[in-house]
Formats: sequence, structure tokens, C-alpha cells
Amino acid sequence: MLIVMEKTATPEEINNVVTSIEEKGYTARPIPGGDRVSIGILHNKGPVDGSLFSGLAGVKDVVRVTRPYKLVSREFKMEDTIIKLGDVSIGNGHLTIIAGPCAVESEIQALTIAEHVKKAGASIFRGGAFKPRTSPYSFQGLGEEGLKILAKVRETTGMPVVTEVMDDATFDLVEEYTDIIQIGTRNMQNFSLLRRAGGSDKPILLKRGMAATIDEWLMAAEYILERGNGQVILCERGVRTFVHHSRNTLDLSAVPVILKESHLPIIIDPSHAAGRRDQVIPLSRAAAAVDAHGLMVEVHHEPEKALCDGSQSLYPEQFQELCDQVRSIFNIYNA
Amino acid sequence: MLIVMEKTATPEEINNVVTSIEEKGYTARPIPGGDRVSIGILHNKGPVDGSLFSGLAGVKDVVRVTRPYKLVSREFKMEDTIIKLGDVSIGNGHLTIIAGPCAVESEIQALTIAEHVKKAGASIFRGGAFKPRTSPYSFQGLGEEGLKILAKVRETTGMPVVTEVMDDATFDLVEEYTDIIQIGTRNMQNFSLLRRAGGSDKPILLKRGMAATIDEWLMAAEYILERGNGQVILCERGVRTFVHHSRNTLDLSAVPVILKESHLPIIIDPSHAAGRRDQVIPLSRAAAAVDAHGLMVEVHHEPEKALCDGSQSLYPEQFQELCDQVRSIFNIYNA
Amino acid sequence: MLIVMEKTATPEEINNVVTSIEEKGYTARPIPGGDRVSIGILHNKGPVDGSLFSGLAGVKDVVRVTRPYKLVSREFKMEDTIIKLGDVSIGNGHLTIIAGPCAVESEIQALTIAEHVKKAGASIFRGGAFKPRTSPYSFQGLGEEGLKILAKVRETTGMPVVTEVMDDATFDLVEEYTDIIQIGTRNMQNFSLLRRAGGSDKPILLKRGMAATIDEWLMAAEYILERGNGQVILCERGVRTFVHHSRNTLDLSAVPVILKESHLPIIIDPSHAAGRRDQVIPLSRAAAAVDAHGLMVEVHHEPEKALCDGSQSLYPEQFQELCDQVRSIFNIYNA
Amino acid sequence: MLIVMEKTATPEEINNVVTSIEEKGYTARPIPGGDRVSIGILHNKGPVDGSLFSGLAGVKDVVRVTRPYKLVSREFKMEDTIIKLGDVSIGNGHLTIIAGPCAVESEIQALTIAEHVKKAGASIFRGGAFKPRTSPYSFQGLGEEGLKILAKVRETTGMPVVTEVMDDATFDLVEEYTDIIQIGTRNMQNFSLLRRAGGSDKPILLKRGMAATIDEWLMAAEYILERGNGQVILCERGVRTFVHHSRNTLDLSAVPVILKESHLPIIIDPSHAAGRRDQVIPLSRAAAAVDAHGLMVEVHHEPEKALCDGSQSLYPEQFQELCDQVRSIFNIYNA
Repeated sequence: MLIVMEKTATPEEINNVVTSIEEKGYTARPIPGGDRVSIGILHNKGPVDGSLFSGLAGVKDVVRVTRPYKLVSREFKMEDTIIKLGDVSIGNGHLTIIAGPCAVESEIQALTIAEHVKKAGASIFRGGAFKPRTSPYSFQGLGEEGLKILAKVRETTGMPVVTEVMDDATFDLVEEYTDIIQIGTRNMQNFSLLRRAGGSDKPILLKRGMAATIDEWLMAAEYILERGNGQVILCERGVRTFVHHSRNTLDLSAVPVILKESHLPIIIDPSHAAGRRDQVIPLSRAAAAVDAHGLMVEVHHEPEKALCDGSQSLYPEQFQELCDQVRSIFNIYNA
Repeated sequence: MLIVMEKTATPEEINNVVTSIEEKGYTARPIPGGDRVSIGILHNKGPVDGSLFSGLAGVKDVVRVTRPYKLVSREFKMEDTIIKLGDVSIGNGHLTIIAGPCAVESEIQALTIAEHVKKAGASIFRGGAFKPRTSPYSFQGLGEEGLKILAKVRETTGMPVVTEVMDDATFDLVEEYTDIIQIGTRNMQNFSLLRRAGGSDKPILLKRGMAATIDEWLMAAEYILERGNGQVILCERGVRTFVHHSRNTLDLSAVPVILKESHLPIIIDPSHAAGRRDQVIPLSRAAAAVDAHGLMVEVHHEPEKALCDGSQSLYPEQFQELCDQVRSIFNIYNA
Repeated sequence: MLIVMEKTATPEEINNVVTSIEEKGYTARPIPGGDRVSIGILHNKGPVDGSLFSGLAGVKDVVRVTRPYKLVSREFKMEDTIIKLGDVSIGNGHLTIIAGPCAVESEIQALTIAEHVKKAGASIFRGGAFKPRTSPYSFQGLGEEGLKILAKVRETTGMPVVTEVMDDATFDLVEEYTDIIQIGTRNMQNFSLLRRAGGSDKPILLKRGMAATIDEWLMAAEYILERGNGQVILCERGVRTFVHHSRNTLDLSAVPVILKESHLPIIIDPSHAAGRRDQVIPLSRAAAAVDAHGLMVEVHHEPEKALCDGSQSLYPEQFQELCDQVRSIFNIYNA
Repeated sequence: MLIVMEKTATPEEINNVVTSIEEKGYTARPIPGGDRVSIGILHNKGPVDGSLFSGLAGVKDVVRVTRPYKLVSREFKMEDTIIKLGDVSIGNGHLTIIAGPCAVESEIQALTIAEHVKKAGASIFRGGAFKPRTSPYSFQGLGEEGLKILAKVRETTGMPVVTEVMDDATFDLVEEYTDIIQIGTRNMQNFSLLRRAGGSDKPILLKRGMAATIDEWLMAAEYILERGNGQVILCERGVRTFVHHSRNTLDLSAVPVILKESHLPIIIDPSHAAGRRDQVIPLSRAAAAVDAHGLMVEVHHEPEKALCDGSQSLYPEQFQELCDQVRSIFNIYNA
């Protein structure tokens, strides 16, 4: 942490900042510059809260020098985290494809789609039982019935399943049925939910908030690791920008940043990024090309009848095409 | 809802869209244009989910014509909602000032600040007992002890209090102690929490999400009203943009839009918008000038020692200045 | 400037950075921290280009400590710049209102509107003769004929006039006719135009780019001052964000920042920020309340027939209301 | 165009809108809906300016149905535009790599880098002679001397060259020396420059503005085509968002949108998108994977000594790696 003083800061103001730093147990080191003084903060164990100093008299800026996260960082743990579910692995060296409908609508719907996506190359099935919807009047998911259908899909196809948990009240229920627990973009900073996830022994798929920085996202993961669950899969799904030709703007530069900063696996959700079927395949290829560890894709055999997100769901034959194409890209260096 | 077809759409594709609309119980009305056909959807009760049609063959665009919200809209209820807590009112014709520290730190801290802000002109006291923090290593609030201190503040000063609720698990507890229940920006789309708030008989202060559109914000309020609680106060607190000279960009145009679209009161939080003390007073004056119904401001008697958000907290004498200035602006037309 | 090294940086990498700094004529000062080394750059006259160092081996981050601008800064010139045009002043202590149509359409149109706005309280007339339009098929302005009409307005009403210059080729012409030369948002970083403006002896009204930071905006002004023209008026007109209930998001926090960082006057354009008539008056009041030095407002006596921006132009009676209201706010502290 | 009326709009207001539409020469078609009336505008040749109607009494919204551009659209010209420079082609079926330094610094620097990039697989050389710089105190380029060096590079290596033009005054000069004329992101809506480019017989490389929508970008290209120059290459270079782990956020979804909407070629500039060397290679692979027609990459043999953008310039051996990788991806379907 570096405290930059105003050019006009008085010696008293500088001393006051030094005192304030030392009162909090840190070491202050004034650094006289060309025309102003900066003050470094040393010997802090863990991150310092810069806002403690930014309002003091004579302070122009507070500059953070180190990252605020710890357990999720590659500096803390060098080797990549690989999540394993039976034969399926998620992490470095793999391109794991998760696919299924936005929402589980019926057993026949789920099983039909599951057969399609398994055949095409997916190794994990997704489907929503509890759905976060902007409108209270939209379809909210089948709830426990949906979870039972997911269990049936696993039993029938052998694929592990992932589904979203929306609150503490239904966490135990969701945890009981699913193999991977998804925390959605709107809940990325639902800290109670993160702490509960940290107490689970199942892997957590943590979506990036729609306006979250990488630091905030990794700090959300830090909440989970800090409670003891090291099995976190990060999922980039686009951020909100001024752009409106896609629902969100997929931030693929997040992948090299996460690969450098953290040991956790990162996958891409092109369906929610695009919000439109015709961008899903090209964005999936791009995800494979930046070395993401996997994809989560919405697929429906009758998207025009889907109860949610039909317009971004691929037809099964499109999903087959997607799998073939991303596999070809992955195989260039990993075959 | 208007479905715009491609120039090259075939009669079969147009018929297919018409059929798809009518299968869902609506009326389809094709509208031949200069060089393409559009299809209007009529006789829908409540909003239509456009994504049901956007993926059909030959469809170029789906255009939403009406707003998705209902109970919160001024079209549904013409007269302004005024929230009353004893002598204090929030809504049209009032400029209600809520003030206090970011977090309740001790009884002496809370009471000291409460005396200051009451004297300066605040009529409601704020203070966090459960704090949502980006880092698991930051101060998380005093919890129930903090709530008890808030009750003591009310008892001592006569001011109603507002504090944030973070999850379902602590909702009953928070509800028991506080007069107004705050739902924070990170929980704006925590739908379980919104539903629970809809079952409360206490007013809900609903902060706008940091990247939420007005529609999404009003739909979050709709969740609360739909469960039976009509006492919702909207709070604009800045949105996330590329700008970094303030923590967020205060979106004051939201005020005239909300005043036009909804009957609910809207207040401004300049402290979280700015994130820096020196912008809080000018932004507060601006809030009064656009006819917001109130302000929520962070104040601390010793901000350099505050356990959170010290850099944006006003000194008591600055808060006095703020109250005097915004009152003068309000009085121009309301005295 | 502070160079933050990786935790794992080797002594060789640190030495290499030190050498690289010193080769460029600066002084390097290594600062050992808790778990990594940072290197300060001292004795630089003027700003340092951080990108020179950010790619060196072992460098984690480059942190800018000081501002990149000089002549526009308040550190360089403490007293406020006041622009004077006859009896009209723009700057600290004044609330100067500029008003007129988006485009000059005819002499009768311009004179009619000028009479209206002068009577209501405007002291400077605006009107476009050369119009930057997104589409080559839209009305592009009357050109020199428009400039002659502006001169007629000045002659008839006594008001100074402001109009936009779009390129070097027409700069002399525009400069000859107008009192203030406007550089539009799309040209904020048209450096040739900025340099040419720096050679003019007329004041320059410099609009903020639609995605410009404060630093970039002040650096654009620096181009003008650096060439010898110190009469620059900054104009905030909203920035582009994800929000779509207004055309842009008016960034009022820019005002206190500019007032602190620079000696130049700053005014607000609520018309282009809002893009909708019904937000213009409240945003104008807010601008007065944050102590902006003026307003630039679009007014038309027949906006439904206007050749551009009709939907954001005020009717004359609305503009009268606007002037009365902002004057009342200004008078609270300045009467 | 669709005009949506308020629920409460009176028959007079509806008639007034109809009259206003017909006065402008269009046909108005009222469409009674469930609880409000909409009015379609028909028989317009070319786009309608919606702002002409959005301010009329009783109007709630104006909804644009068709795209505003014409000559650049695929509806106007179905077959892909391919730009040819001798043996080099840019457009569908090709992956053309442009590479070179940010700025031409000397003949030896340019020739050294040119040999490197040619050998690695680039077919066009880039280098700035006139540099747009945020600061007037930064290196502004070698000017005509730089252009002469570019001509020498072409003569020596046989590669066509591309360089940026900044203003009308130097357009003839730049046009004389270069093979492709670049218009930079800050000049995307410099309409004088676009018109001048429309009169050139050389291809124009048009970068997307840092906050431009696809529509605005294509309309900028429309300015060039409308003046007679059909050889435009679009270049996506990232947009400005709240994200700060990369300098801009590369918007790869722009590629499928442009491929669908327009016949013009589109290439990607990963260097300016990332602003950091370590993201350039993965983003380049992603660009190839979404079927962009080419890349423009900054390369320097001594980036730590580069006069601009050194931190995002690749070392020659990294560029070799980049070429090999993107070629492998391209070859999957195009070999």
C-alpha cells in the first residue's frame, strides 16, 4: 500500500498519516519524491484496507500494491487444482463440456436432451431446478421435482450433474441431489451462500458477477476456500457493458489473467454471454482457443418450446457441431 | 411485443411464427412493412417472454413494447406511496435524511454519532450490524450486539433506525430490532430474500444493483410487492462504469425516470456513489435538486478510526453543512 | 511512478528494472516490502510513460502516482480561470446559461429562438452550422450560411455565439464568425484540431469524449494550453454506460473533481446527457447544485419540426422554467 | 419504426402523431393493442429519424425496426468483399496477419522488425509515422521521415504497409506512401476524415471507436462507401468497460455480428485490446477461432526500448509462436 500525499501537504499532515499507519500495527516508510512525498506501508500480514487512510488531511491517493486474495492465488499454491468426479476431470489439461437445458421441464425433456449431449461429447449435464428470474411472473423451476429428474439423468446416463442453488434454505436439498453446486451471477457476492458453500464437500461452480472485477470474483472464491472447500470452478459468463448486440460482453482476457493469478480451473458459459444462439458456437471456439478448461452450454431439442432462454439454446445438431469444433482446437496442442 | 422478420423470410416462416404465438394463447397480427413483415402480439395479460420467439427461423428482432412490471408502476397506482414511521415520512413532498456510520462499532460510537446527526437534521439513523464485505478477512459487523445498540439508539434519540439484512437466516432477528430493513446492492436480485421481505410488515429499503437497469430494479421491487409488502423505498447508489475518479457513477437521471414510472419513493446514497468524502456534499445537493425524496449519508465522528468506509464518511460538521445546504434547495419549492 | 515486482522476482530482474529506469534519465529507488520489492521512480520532470517498464521480466504492476497534466492543473495555477466575452463571464462565481437549437435551420428560426432564450435568461446563443451526424444521410447543417445567421443573431440580440468546428479545413471560417469555438465529443482526441484550437485567440468549449476519463479530458485541454490558448471551457455531457433510460449517464461527480484538479471553468450539457426532454430540467438543477459554472441547453420553439435532436429540445416556456429554477439554486449562496 | 403511445394517450394525441408522420411523407398505420395503441411508419425509403417523434405528446417510446446502414449491409450486397494488394488478400477465406512496431523509430528498427515478422508469417507491415498520443509531451512519431522508412520496408521486403492518418492536412502525404490507410479509434467519427477516405482509391482500415456500437461503426464505414470507396477493412480493438485487468475488453461477439450484417472484412487488434503482452497470444488464437479475417499485432525486437506501447509489443519469438498457433486453428477448416 502506498499513500500519496498532496504537493502542499504539511509536515504535520505527513506525520499524522505515519502515526495513523503505525497505530494500526504497520510500519510506515516515507518516500520523498520529486515534488511530493509518498508513504509506503510495510510489514502488513494480509491486505490493508486503504480506505482507512484515504480521507486523512493531505492525502491525494491511496494505491494498492498487492492483491487482496490469498488462498485462491497461485502465489499461495503453485500447482493447478483439478476437480475430479469419477472419470470426469475439470482443470488444466482438460476441456470439459457441460451441457443441458436452461431449466429442467420434465423427465422426458431432460432425458432426451441428456442423451443428445452425451452422444455429442458432453461429460456433465446441467439443468436448472430453482431458477433465478428477473420477473416474479416467470417460470421459477420445478424445485425438488427437478432435482429428482436430475438424479434420474445421472442414473440413466452416468453423467454427473450440476444445478444452481439460490439460497441457504434449499442448500441441503440441492447438495443432496447434485454433483456440482452452481452459484449464479446474481449471488456471486451473497456471502452467506458462499460461506455455506465453503462447508460443503461438493465442488462449487462460481459464476462471475455481471459487473464484478477479477479481484472481487477471486475474493468471492476466497470466501469458499476460507471455509475449507478448495474445489471451486470459476465460470466467466460475460460482463455488462454498453454493447447491445450481445446480452453481455464475453471477457475472454479473464482466462489468461485467472490462469496466471489463480490455481483454480476456469470455464466459459457462451450461452449467457451471447444471449443469442448464433454467437454461441464461435464464442465456444474462442473459449477453447484461449485455453479455458471447459464450457457450459445450453442445449434444447425444442428450443422454440423452452420455458426459459430458448433463444440462446442450441439445437442438438448445432451442439454436435460445437463439440467437434472445440475438440479440434483443443487437440492441436493436447491430443 | 413486436416480432420483426428478416427481409428474406418466407411465407412459411411467417406462418410458423404466427402459429407459435397463437399456441401460447396470444393473438398474432402480421403488419406488412415497406420491405419486410412485422408481427404484433396482442391480448397478452402481463408481459410476454420475447425469447420464446427470437430463435425461430426468419426472425430478425424481438422488440418489447410494454414494461415488464405491474404493481410498482404508476400506471397501476397513480398516487405516490408515502412511508410513515411515527412522525417521519418518506415520499413525495419530503426530503428525509438518513445518517449514521457505515458499521455500528460500539454503543458509545453509535450514540455519539446519533446525537450529532439528529442535531444536524437527520430523522432516521443508519448503521450496519451485518456487513457485506468483499473480503472474508474484513470486519463483518457486530451482529446481534449491533442490533441491540441500534435499539438503544432509537430508545435514546427517538429516531427510527435502518440496518441491512444479508440473508434469510438472520431476517427474523434483523426484523425484530429495526424499523426499516435494508437490502443491499449485492442482494438486489437475491430473490429468496426479496420474497421474505415481501412477507414482512416493515418497510424495505431496496438499493439498486451496481449494474442493474431501472427495469431490473423495479422488477426486484415487484417481487416484494407481489408478496404483499407495498412499503418499498428505492435507493440509487451509483452504477459501475469505466469511470474511476469516483467509486461508482451516480445516475441521477434515474430519479425523474422512477418518479414517472413508479409510485414508490426514491432516495439517494451519495456516500457509496462517491466513495470519497469530498464528493458527498455536492452530490447530496444535486440529489435534492432532482427532487429525490431523501438521502442516506455516512457520518462518523472519527472517520480516520472507522472500521469500514472511513474515507467516505463525513465529519459531523460537514454533515451539518450538508443538511443546511440540501434543506435550502428543498425549501425553494417546498417551504 | 512505482514499479511493483513479482514475489518471485530475482535480484537480476530487479537490477534490470533499475538499470532500465536510469537509462532513461530518472532515479530508481528500490523499496523492499513485506514479501516483494517495489521500485520508485524519482526526479522525473513531467510524467513518465509507465508502459516503458510494465513489460520487463519480473514486473507485476506499474502504478502511476502523479497526474499526467501540467498547465491545466490547479497545482500549476491556483486561481480560477474566468473567460470574459464583453459583459458575459464564465467561471467561478457565475452560472452562465448557453441556449439555442441543435442546428441553425433558418434566420427566422434562429432569431425566434434567440429572442426566447435571451428573455428567459440565457446570455450566450448556441446553434450548429456544421453538424457531426452518425449517418451520412442525416441533415449536416447549413455550413457558412448557418455561420452568417449566427452573426446576425449576435448583431440583433447582442449575445455572443458558440458553434462547433468539425475540422481544420473549416476552422478559419468558423473562427471568423463565432465568439466561442466548440470542439465536440467525437473530436475530443482529434489532436490536429486541438493544436489548431491552441493557436486561436478565441475561447474553446471542449466537450468530454463519451468514454473519456477525466485524465484524458484534461490532457486534451493540455494540448490547447500547450499551444498558447489558455481560454478553455470544459463541458461534461454524459458518458456511455450500460444504462439506456437516458442516452448517456451524466457524470456530475466530474464537477467537484475538475474544480479540485483544474483552474478551468466547467459547464454541463444536460440535453445531450439525457437525450430526452423530460430529464433536462431536473439534471440542470442538479448541475447548478454541484456548482457547475454554467449550462448549455437545447431549445426550439417547434421541436417537433426540428431537423435534429427535437426530442431533447425544450419548449421556450420549459426553458424559462429551467432558468428560474437554476437561478434560485445558484442564488442560495451567490446572490 | 414503431411509435408506442402511452396507455392514457387521447385520440387527439394519436391523431397528432399520425399527422406528424404523414407530414414527413411517410405512411402511418395505427395498431390498437391490448391496452394501448402503437403506430407503425411505413413506406420510408431509408432510415427514419425517430427523435422526430419521441417528444410528441402521448408518446411513450420510439422503437427502431430496421438497421440505419445501407451500402455496408449484407442485405445490400450479398457476396463478401475481398481486398487485394498484389498477392495478399483480406477477407473471407483468408487469415491475414499484419505486424510491426507501434511507431517507426528508425530505418534499422523498422527493417529489423520487418524481417522478423515476414519470416514468422506476416504478410503486411504496420508502423506509425503520425501517432495520436493522449499527452502532447509524448513522442508523436517521425512524420514524413517515418513514411519514407515504410516505403523502404516495402521495397526491401515486398510487403505492403499500413499506417495511420490523423488529419486532412497530412492525408495526401500518407496516401502517397502507404498501401492501406488506417483511421484510428479516436477518429472513427471524424466525419471529414471519413469523407476524405471515401475519395481515396486505397483500402481503408477503420478501427472501432472505444465506445462505439456496431451500428455507429458500420455507419462510419457507410460514410466511406457513400463517397465511392468500397475497400474498407473493419478492425475490432476492444471497447472501454469497467474492467481494468486489460486495457480494453475485446468484443469478439462483434465478429459473428459483422459477418452476418456486413460484407466487409473484419480483423482483430489484440495488442490494443489487451495492452499487456501476456494476453496477446491467447486473444489472437481466439480471434482466429471466431473466424476473423486477420490480425494486427504489435511486435518489437527490443520492446523495453520502444518509444511507445512497449509493454504490449511481442518479442519476435513470441510472434513466431503466435503465427504458428493461429495458423493451426485456421487450418482446421481452411487448409
